[in-house]
Amino acid sequence: MVNKSFWFNMLLIPTFVEQFTTMNSKEFRATAHQFVDWMADYLEQIEELPVRSQVKPGEIYNQLPENPPQEPESIQTIFEDFKRIVVPGMTHWQHPKYFAYFPANSSYPSLLAEMLTATMGAQGMLWETSPAATEMEERVMNWLIDLLQLPKNWDGCIQVSASSSTLVAIISAREKYSGYTTNKKGVHQPLTVYASEHIHSSIEKAVRLAGMGSDNYRAIGVDQNFAMRPDLLETAIKDDIANGKKPACVVVAIGTTSSTAVDPLKQIAEICQRYDIWLHVDAAFAGTAMVLPEHRHQINGVELADSFVFNPHKWMFTNFDCSAYFVKDKDVMIRAFSILPEYLKTRNDDTVINYKDWGIQLGRRFRALKLWFVIRNFGVTGIQERLRTHIMLAENLEAEIRETADFELLSPRYFCLLCFRYRPTDKELTEEALNALNARIVGQLNDSGELFLTHTKLNGKYTIRLCIAQTNVNATHVKEAWALIRKVARQ
Amino acid sequence: MVNKSFWFNMLLIPTFVEQFTTMNSKEFRATAHQFVDWMADYLEQIEELPVRSQVKPGEIYNQLPENPPQEPESIQTIFEDFKRIVVPGMTHWQHPKYFAYFPANSSYPSLLAEMLTATMGAQGMLWETSPAATEMEERVMNWLIDLLQLPKNWDGCIQVSASSSTLVAIISAREKYSGYTTNKKGVHQPLTVYASEHIHSSIEKAVRLAGMGSDNYRAIGVDQNFAMRPDLLETAIKDDIANGKKPACVVVAIGTTSSTAVDPLKQIAEICQRYDIWLHVDAAFAGTAMVLPEHRHQINGVELADSFVFNPHKWMFTNFDCSAYFVKDKDVMIRAFSILPEYLKTRNDDTVINYKDWGIQLGRRFRALKLWFVIRNFGVTGIQERLRTHIMLAENLEAEIRETADFELLSPRYFCLLCFRYRPTDKELTEEALNALNARIVGQLNDSGELFLTHTKLNGKYTIRLCIAQTNVNATHVKEAWALIRKVARQ
Repeated sequence: MVNKSFWFNMLLIPTFVEQFTTMNSKEFRATAHQFVDWMADYLEQIEELPVRSQVKPGEIYNQLPENPPQEPESIQTIFEDFKRIVVPGMTHWQHPKYFAYFPANSSYPSLLAEMLTATMGAQGMLWETSPAATEMEERVMNWLIDLLQLPKNWDGCIQVSASSSTLVAIISAREKYSGYTTNKKGVHQPLTVYASEHIHSSIEKAVRLAGMGSDNYRAIGVDQNFAMRPDLLETAIKDDIANGKKPACVVVAIGTTSSTAVDPLKQIAEICQRYDIWLHVDAAFAGTAMVLPEHRHQINGVELADSFVFNPHKWMFTNFDCSAYFVKDKDVMIRAFSILPEYLKTRNDDTVINYKDWGIQLGRRFRALKLWFVIRNFGVTGIQERLRTHIMLAENLEAEIRETADFELLSPRYFCLLCFRYRPTDKELTEEALNALNARIVGQLNDSGELFLTHTKLNGKYTIRLCIAQTNVNATHVKEAWALIRKVARQ
Repeated sequence: MVNKSFWFNMLLIPTFVEQFTTMNSKEFRATAHQFVDWMADYLEQIEELPVRSQVKPGEIYNQLPENPPQEPESIQTIFEDFKRIVVPGMTHWQHPKYFAYFPANSSYPSLLAEMLTATMGAQGMLWETSPAATEMEERVMNWLIDLLQLPKNWDGCIQVSASSSTLVAIISAREKYSGYTTNKKGVHQPLTVYASEHIHSSIEKAVRLAGMGSDNYRAIGVDQNFAMRPDLLETAIKDDIANGKKPACVVVAIGTTSSTAVDPLKQIAEICQRYDIWLHVDAAFAGTAMVLPEHRHQINGVELADSFVFNPHKWMFTNFDCSAYFVKDKDVMIRAFSILPEYLKTRNDDTVINYKDWGIQLGRRFRALKLWFVIRNFGVTGIQERLRTHIMLAENLEAEIRETADFELLSPRYFCLLCFRYRPTDKELTEEALNALNARIVGQLNDSGELFLTHTKLNGKYTIRLCIAQTNVNATHVKEAWALIRKVARQ
């Protein structure tokens, strides 16, 4: 039986709730303004901070209380702890001297859009759960198709990361070349996947996750520029066919992780056409450079591919996470990924896009908004000029390294990543000693907090990787970094 | 050869760059303050907006220009377009009358943390790429273990969504029960997976993605409360074993999507022990309620499980995306998901957590921060009281519905979701006519913009689902919603 006084009592609930609500709108507004000043200050003063966090393992963990607080704590207390404990434990990805890995670069317009996205807190799994999220994603993906000159009849969507995009591509290929029987029957025939031995580890990981087995993954050898050799690819394909396997997917790298090497897309695409194989293009970092007419030729032949991924969250000034994935035939993907229980049916299912069917996760943030802010606020020319600045900086540093007797470049420069090592001229060191020496140099540089860079191995050689792609990097930063590298190396 | 004037010229680059930079720190600061006022206003005035967007398909898309702008556009122009074009196309998930699906609820402290996370733009794939991101995640996951009274020796991490968490669980089970041979050889033996026929579609989707095949997925029948029947589960397991299959994973629902039914965890856990099967607990929505001592018994036996997921982004006031995934034995997961190329090796790999090995994607946002803000700013008691308010509101509405002759409840209430339909007392309608009538009611309610709720089917009956879990929902909202439902239904 209903307690008749219920509604009356519960109408008092705004008061009731408030006692457990630690913040009202007024306090939120004031605190958010305070946070904005911190945000602007942080980004203005970021160069005063060590790039790579200088803390030791456990140092942050041990400063955080073992148990959650029973009673509410004030936002000011939390904010103070954030500044005192968290900030020193951060590696500052937006520092202009962040030269490590690939950047996750950001920008003011992107950050502003993130504020709006977080405020609305919408989840765009279906068109109906926020039409603007879906339709802006569709529009902005078409802008990117235009910017990169991808085929106009392709479709795009935003995935969490290139790892997810590649997994979507590989599962799509798995389904297509098993005649759409694998989702139902499970993997039941050997489908093989090919990529350069220099491609990102996420490709082999995707093959594993999809249940296809890394025994069916072929790491294809590269030429002296670390680009995949089409002749070796074709040989591997023929071998597999001869052994009763069905080649299902080739992944081309436009910009490998180690050295941003560019595989010969057109030649590989022709092989894929010949053997009817899904061609996926992994341009996670370097894809952004296709906005530049002088680089666009590097993906000539892309119209023969089946899918393409690049991450605006790497080099297009858009906050992580934002991976742009494009497909020639979206129906293959939807057939592989769609599942429609009653509770997700809507009245418009036949006429609208429901992005839940375009990937792994059901739930989706409204990530198109930040891309829309960035593209509009930079403009195409603004994006192009920023990219050209990065590439020009790299080009000039490359020339400096080439002129410096005790340093050597270990790979060609394709975009804005430099691969090199220190090799003293006054003594003959073994390769092993050189590797150890360069590892020490990288460690010491990063320990200084002055810059952050990482390493890879090329032909067994420990290689210093320096990627000039942080949004705000300029000549001073590169010059200072190069001076420090020489100094530390020569000590 | 190096152009010697290079460095000198490039030192002028701040000026050079500025002409292509559409925003400097000063403009950012001013604009971000302006955005904060919009954010606070939006959340203050959200009840004046229609809950579900009222736009027609294509309406937003067609207002967005076909091509990206060549030249930079001012942030004010973009912001005006945002307010004019985007906001009307949003379904407002933070509206207190959002009763649809499950909420993606948020809160002021969460939103404040999102501002900081976006500002720092760190990517936490490795400990070294931001120790604070990794160590706070470890700490906050331990807080959640404490809050939900999960086994103290378990480990947790944040995944994108429950779909990802479940995929991680199922692939872990696949690897474990194939003796860790599937990643290498591909799926090569029938491994079966079991879940209630009422469980979320992401379970079957995960089985497909993992290459195990939905032929090896068993939807187990439920009792009159829509909870899985352990006897039917055991029969299915025995049948599969008799047919040479290896049962690999059972997924228990603590809160199904249709009706938040609770499967009998303890009984099912004992079956899993007996047959050596991975037990994964999907508590995506309802897991948060385990913070309440009066609900905690619903996961008695969880110590016998292998993994557990719940989404703080659903009912714990933390912005999407934030899915908390816990495992008994993290080594199984790491063995299944780890891949370590040279360029991702760091000096501390043996002593620190690198969360890249704990899931599908390599890249990771710093999502622990918002959870830390929420738990501290609410306090455990604050979270508990808010949950109790939601449950009390649902309890009282349930009593009202039960007392109302022309409405009927279609499932028991477990938490704060009500499943019911309108059934007029003045005429005898077929089930088909009742289904059509209730579908019309839901459509009309949502078209009104006054509230947003969704539907499911229970025993073939079209069921209205009303979930009372938006952060700021109070008795007035529920009372008004119930009045409108009655009015619309009776028209």
